[in-house]
Amino acid sequence: MKAVVLLSGGLDSSVVLYQAKADGCQCYAISFDYQQRHRRELKSAIAIAQRAGVNDHQVVSFDLRQWGGSALTDDRIDLPRERSLEQMSQTIPITYVPARNTIFLSFGLAYAEAIGAQRVYLGVNALDYSGYPDCRPDYIQAMQEVFTLGTKQGREGQGIQIVTPLIQLKKTEIIELGNRLGVPWEETWSCYAGGDVACGVCDSCRLRLAAFAELGLRDPLHYEVV
Amino acid sequence: MKAVVLLSGGLDSSVVLYQAKADGCQCYAISFDYQQRHRRELKSAIAIAQRAGVNDHQVVSFDLRQWGGSALTDDRIDLPRERSLEQMSQTIPITYVPARNTIFLSFGLAYAEAIGAQRVYLGVNALDYSGYPDCRPDYIQAMQEVFTLGTKQGREGQGIQIVTPLIQLKKTEIIELGNRLGVPWEETWSCYAGGDVACGVCDSCRLRLAAFAELGLRDPLHYEVV
Repeated sequence: MKAVVLLSGGLDSSVVLYQAKADGCQCYAISFDYQQRHRRELKSAIAIAQRAGVNDHQVVSFDLRQWGGSALTDDRIDLPRERSLEQMSQTIPITYVPARNTIFLSFGLAYAEAIGAQRVYLGVNALDYSGYPDCRPDYIQAMQEVFTLGTKQGREGQGIQIVTPLIQLKKTEIIELGNRLGVPWEETWSCYAGGDVACGVCDSCRLRLAAFAELGLRDPLHYEVV
Repeated sequence: MKAVVLLSGGLDSSVVLYQAKADGCQCYAISFDYQQRHRRELKSAIAIAQRAGVNDHQVVSFDLRQWGGSALTDDRIDLPRERSLEQMSQTIPITYVPARNTIFLSFGLAYAEAIGAQRVYLGVNALDYSGYPDCRPDYIQAMQEVFTLGTKQGREGQGIQIVTPLIQLKKTEIIELGNRLGVPWEETWSCYAGGDVACGVCDSCRLRLAAFAELGLRDPLHYEVV
């Protein structure tokens, strides 16, 4: 079965790619250059896709800085730093990018229909302290309806399914799953800050580091501050 | 009230822009350069946006030729020519672009949330002989759910509404509405063929010409073949 896998180059989506492979899918990765602050992640996406041996890898480019509205697409907005996991969980953070997953899933859907894939894998996680509205199960269910009603493939026959293997896992469980699947953590990239070395203090670094620490494992990435 | 208006430069979306103005909205137009065969329509979108006096106009660029899958994004697929309206109504045509409206609405949603707009106007039409799955009311309803659940604005307060003023109108009724609103037809562009002069024989030209003819009106565009 053909599957499109949304691959940011981060920890979660890399695990999802390896899970899709383990599920027996021929994998078609898709990544997005949206002029994100941390475009460095695309280098990781390309490396991971190669390591995983995908059938194809599309990088789609567009510019979400045109209207900004997020710390990830507007350099004038400061990234949150050194927040505790509790602080992260309280509100929708300024790193929320308006409609990002909807845009990503839309391109994933287009790619899937063009190549005749039956699944689109996505590494969203509802327990991730992120508070992002477009990572929650009810949102995914709404997008599934769009996948079915908004395509020729969905109207005429077998539709395209959204698969979210991580949605109810804790970060520690995601890392354990990745270890079982052989995900090369050293190739992944989670930091939001936009440097060539992971900062260690943005929400994304902190969440990752906390999970590795909780498991008593070493994160092989090098960090500026740990 | 701020409104984002999806503006292709075609007849329908131009009427919708003028309708949004008539509804009292401050209009923010958004158009898409997706490497469509008929990129000529963008010139019309820019002209119409200026004539209508929008507050801003964003043109978002990405490349749907990366995977093709449509006569509008793959030059190796021939456009249907000289089809009757009955022939057009029978199947989903090869000019269907996988997930196009889902992609367009996703960007419209992102733009709307970034600028704090409460509406996204879209010129879809369910009676248009097009057969496109992503022009039907049940699809729009599914996208509305995504708009509500997939955004901070939808989760925390007043959501963003999709407005489709043309969805149940016939093409002749759309033209009559545009006449009342003063839409400058000579600036619009409907032809799919990709030339500098409208072909007159693609589905889009035929549908437009038939509607002007039925009303006993002259379409001010120049056509290669009528």
